[in-house]
Amino acid sequence: MDYERPQFFRFMKYAAEADRDVVDMVSGNPDWEPPTALREALHEYADADADDFQYPPSVGLTELREEIAQRRGVARERVVITNGTGEANHLAMTGGYESMPGEEIVLTDPVYPYYAGRSNLIGASRRFVPADADGQLQPERAKEAVSDETSVVVVNSPNNPTGAVYPEATIATLVDLVEDHDAVLVSDEVYDHFDHSGRFTSALSFDSDHVVVTNGFSKSMAITGFRVGYGVFPDPEAAGPLGDILDGARTRHMLTNVTGARPSQKAVYEALRETPPEYYEANRELLDERIADFTAALDGAGAEYTSPQGAFYVMARFEDFPGTFENVEKLIDEAGVAGMPGEAFGQSKADWIRFAMVTPRADVAAERLAEYFA
Amino acid sequence: MDYERPQFFRFMKYAAEADRDVVDMVSGNPDWEPPTALREALHEYADADADDFQYPPSVGLTELREEIAQRRGVARERVVITNGTGEANHLAMTGGYESMPGEEIVLTDPVYPYYAGRSNLIGASRRFVPADADGQLQPERAKEAVSDETSVVVVNSPNNPTGAVYPEATIATLVDLVEDHDAVLVSDEVYDHFDHSGRFTSALSFDSDHVVVTNGFSKSMAITGFRVGYGVFPDPEAAGPLGDILDGARTRHMLTNVTGARPSQKAVYEALRETPPEYYEANRELLDERIADFTAALDGAGAEYTSPQGAFYVMARFEDFPGTFENVEKLIDEAGVAGMPGEAFGQSKADWIRFAMVTPRADVAAERLAEYFA
Repeated sequence: MDYERPQFFRFMKYAAEADRDVVDMVSGNPDWEPPTALREALHEYADADADDFQYPPSVGLTELREEIAQRRGVARERVVITNGTGEANHLAMTGGYESMPGEEIVLTDPVYPYYAGRSNLIGASRRFVPADADGQLQPERAKEAVSDETSVVVVNSPNNPTGAVYPEATIATLVDLVEDHDAVLVSDEVYDHFDHSGRFTSALSFDSDHVVVTNGFSKSMAITGFRVGYGVFPDPEAAGPLGDILDGARTRHMLTNVTGARPSQKAVYEALRETPPEYYEANRELLDERIADFTAALDGAGAEYTSPQGAFYVMARFEDFPGTFENVEKLIDEAGVAGMPGEAFGQSKADWIRFAMVTPRADVAAERLAEYFA
Repeated sequence: MDYERPQFFRFMKYAAEADRDVVDMVSGNPDWEPPTALREALHEYADADADDFQYPPSVGLTELREEIAQRRGVARERVVITNGTGEANHLAMTGGYESMPGEEIVLTDPVYPYYAGRSNLIGASRRFVPADADGQLQPERAKEAVSDETSVVVVNSPNNPTGAVYPEATIATLVDLVEDHDAVLVSDEVYDHFDHSGRFTSALSFDSDHVVVTNGFSKSMAITGFRVGYGVFPDPEAAGPLGDILDGARTRHMLTNVTGARPSQKAVYEALRETPPEYYEANRELLDERIADFTAALDGAGAEYTSPQGAFYVMARFEDFPGTFENVEKLIDEAGVAGMPGEAFGQSKADWIRFAMVTPRADVAAERLAEYFA
């Protein structure tokens, strides 16, 4: 894998253009309803003064930054609103790489392909830490990988694609490691609302200047197309290069994007304030049910599969059918089910295929798979 | 000037926080109404299926790309929808610099600070071509500046901050130069709807593989906060590295932003199709009037000023009051008028201050200036 350009859109397109009915489980595009308050906020915004259609501050609408800062227990100045969690990760990885002394970025295997693609774009060398069979990161493995050569360690819990939720001890080890080796931990927590295990720990809880936490509303509010994410960067008063990361991220954000989309930010702000916990709870339960139904049908197919503790992906392994690009296209054409090849996520899951539980037809897909592999 | 981070937001903030009434003419934030169809489209979108709230294709909504491609007379595949014209310029400059052999980026002086900041971010060396007193780029000067060391030439016509609209012959010379020196011309045409001279020429009219045209809807639809722009990149079938620029831009766009904001793209698409020419015409006339009123009052102040052929900025020079950061802050505090220091745009306009005609109180501002400098 060269990871140069993530392949999600390729398989979504292949599925959409197939000559038959296909259950699309390629990308993490929620199919459930966004919060009602978000729709209402868009209506309200559509009638706003022309002034409200102009540039928000480069770092994002002040009221949205303030709301996030209060919820996360950090100073508002540390929060930069980005064009989705993707840009937050881009700023965090680039900023960490440019500020810290090491030349290497440490990623997990399996890896979310965007992280690997970004390390290419940045020109960093890469080191992969293999995850366990269940997607967990063993502290011993992390210790072997992180060194003074490391500038950035990127992790994602709840994890895409494995569904692992890292225990507090793993995050603690990672924080210790980046502190010991003058590096930065980038903790992408975009699936934090989809913790089925109850043990999710945010890296922010460690209050370390070596941590950047990224997050966004694409998944929690079912609005991947709105592009509202954020980074919580180290305190600008932090010693040495750590104190420069925020400023570097602000500059890069301004020169790349000027600012993010205001209709999206405004809608998210209102939805964030007005959406009750029951909304998030109901979506988590919906996913729990889909995962249960899907994996039950996979049992019938005699397939191995992962039981996610978080996020909304199930990986499955079918006998003599590795997760190659070719096999995934074959599965679209012949079984009418579209997933993402495990190969796209690295070495360790190359035999597997990832299915996103973002369709009410997850059960249909599972039946088709059971029949196809019968 | 190190140009590291553009200072627009700094002066907007200073003006907003001033202890008195201030006419804000800092940034090019239109104050006129967006198209009616845009508001209607937002209402419609607010009630759309949840599916429509998810990722558009990374390169942008297909129908919007198609609409733009038809209007610009290019193949759809060459169009990438970006997070505002800013990102389009970022992709074009970075792509040109990385693909073409030269190490230098040629800019004009005065320069739009974002171009200079981006060349810093990229790590390119820079060469500035001084514009004439009236903001025009003399072909002889351009020929002196562009060499085999050049990778990218960035121009902006109608020009911010000078108001110059380059004649066809200037664009033709620039296209010849980049073709002769294996470089790329990035032509930022975001003010094309604000051509008061009637002689605007798009670089696309030269049909050269060495041209990237960038544009957007921030100014023409009065929606700087929506972040919808686009780049028209060289044909991917073009010979050598030119043919790689589109692919590089797509990859960088995906890894930086994943994709742009769909509510914004959808609203722009509908507005683009349904807004009659009279909308654009009326805004151009409004600006013509404001420019006339503002400059008439400056006459009373005995100030020198520019008479823009395009865009919506007037630069003024007051006796013994150069366009420094300090003087601009003084003018906010003491005269209640906020502009942008000429210093922020380079050497050649360091004595000047730029005023954006984006307020119905342009006449009030001019009177305040006349009184202050009386």
